[in-house]
Amino acid sequence: MKRIGVILSGCGVYDGSEIHEAVLALLAIERAGAEAICMAPDIQQMHVINHFTGQAESGQQRGVLAESARIARGKVVDVATVSIQDIDGLVIPGGYGAAKNLCDFAVKGAECSVQPDVEQLVREMVDKGKPVAAICIAPALLAKILQGYSPRLTIGNDPDTAAALTAMGAQHVDCPVNEIVVDEKNRLVSTPAYMLAGDIAEAATGIEKAVQQLLAMI
Amino acid sequence: MKRIGVILSGCGVYDGSEIHEAVLALLAIERAGAEAICMAPDIQQMHVINHFTGQAESGQQRGVLAESARIARGKVVDVATVSIQDIDGLVIPGGYGAAKNLCDFAVKGAECSVQPDVEQLVREMVDKGKPVAAICIAPALLAKILQGYSPRLTIGNDPDTAAALTAMGAQHVDCPVNEIVVDEKNRLVSTPAYMLAGDIAEAATGIEKAVQQLLAMI
Repeated sequence: MKRIGVILSGCGVYDGSEIHEAVLALLAIERAGAEAICMAPDIQQMHVINHFTGQAESGQQRGVLAESARIARGKVVDVATVSIQDIDGLVIPGGYGAAKNLCDFAVKGAECSVQPDVEQLVREMVDKGKPVAAICIAPALLAKILQGYSPRLTIGNDPDTAAALTAMGAQHVDCPVNEIVVDEKNRLVSTPAYMLAGDIAEAATGIEKAVQQLLAMI
Repeated sequence: MKRIGVILSGCGVYDGSEIHEAVLALLAIERAGAEAICMAPDIQQMHVINHFTGQAESGQQRGVLAESARIARGKVVDVATVSIQDIDGLVIPGGYGAAKNLCDFAVKGAECSVQPDVEQLVREMVDKGKPVAAICIAPALLAKILQGYSPRLTIGNDPDTAAALTAMGAQHVDCPVNEIVVDEKNRLVSTPAYMLAGDIAEAATGIEKAVQQLLAMI
C-alpha cells in the first residue's frame, strides 16, 4: 500500500490548513487505496483568527500539531519524527496556515523562511525523486524550499502571488481550478483549489486529479 | 436550486462536528447541484479537547459558532436566525459536538435536553414534511427532539447507544457503514459514518447515499 504523508498546518483556512482541501486530499488518497499519514510541525500558530468575525483573537495561542489533530481525528505525528523512508509521496494542503505556520510567506513574501522540519522533509523527498503535491497557496512553500531547482508550479492566476513565486526562482504557470500543473523533472504537482474555487465541488476536481497524478508518479 | 441547511456543532470530532463528515456532506450537497447553508448555535462548547493528547484543556473556552465557521470558511449563520422557509432540507453531521453542544446526550444519555434553537428548527422541519438527515451520533439528537414521533433511525450497531435511542422512543435499526436507514413517515435519513467507519472512504459512501436520499425527498 502506498503511504502518502499529508502535512497539515492547523485547522481552518485563515490561520491553519484549509479544511476542505485537507479532507478532500485524505478522501482522494484513501479512495485510491493508499494510506494517508497526517503530520504537522510541533510549533505555535502565528496567530488565531476568529473565523466568524474574521478578526485576530488577541491573547489566544493554539498549537499547530494539536489543531491539525482535529482534521486527522487524533492520528497525527510531529513532522520532525518523519523520515522519507516512512512515505512514498507527500501532499501539502493550502490555507493560510501553509503561508503563516509552515513558512512566513503571508508576511514576508519572497523573503520568507520555512519551518526547518518541513523544509528538510520536503527537500529530501524531492532529492530522492519522491513526488510532492501542493494545493492552493502551498506551492509558495515549495518555491522557497526549492530555490535553485527552478520548480514549475501554479497558484492559479493571481498576478502578485505568481510574481512572488517567480521572484523565488519558480516558473509559474497559470492554471484553471479544475486542472493541475506537473513538474516532471522535480516530480511536483500543484492545483489552485481555493485560490480560484467558488465552491467545494470545484476544489475537489483539481485535488482529485493532483492526488491521482501524485500516486501515478510513485 | 435546492437549499440544504447543515447544522454544525464546532470543529473537531471530540468537542465539535466531525470534520470529515461535515466536509463530505458539503461535498455531496454541492456536487448534486444544491446549495449548502451552514449554521450553528451561538453558544459556548461544553469543553475543549486537545485532539493530539485526547485530554480536556482546563480553562479554555471556544464558541460553537466561531469554531463551526472554520469548517464553513466563514460562511455560517446563527441557527436562531434561520427559518424553515430558508431551507428545503437539513443535514446534521456527527462528532461529539452533536452530543455535547447541540444537546447533552454524551453526558445524560436518554435524559438529555436539546439546545432550544436547534430543537425548534428540527421540529418545524419535520412537522412541515421537510427532510432531515442525521449522520453518526446525530440521530440521538433527532430521537430526543422527535419523542412521540417514533422515528426510525440508525447509529450503526452499538448496543448501548441503540438502547438509549430506544429509551427515547425511537425505533433503532442496525445498519452497515455504507448504507442508510430511511424513515418515510417522518422523512428522516440516517447513516452510521464514523460510528463504524474505519476510514474516510467508508464514511463517504454512506454520507453520499444519505445526501442523495435527502435531496430525492425534497
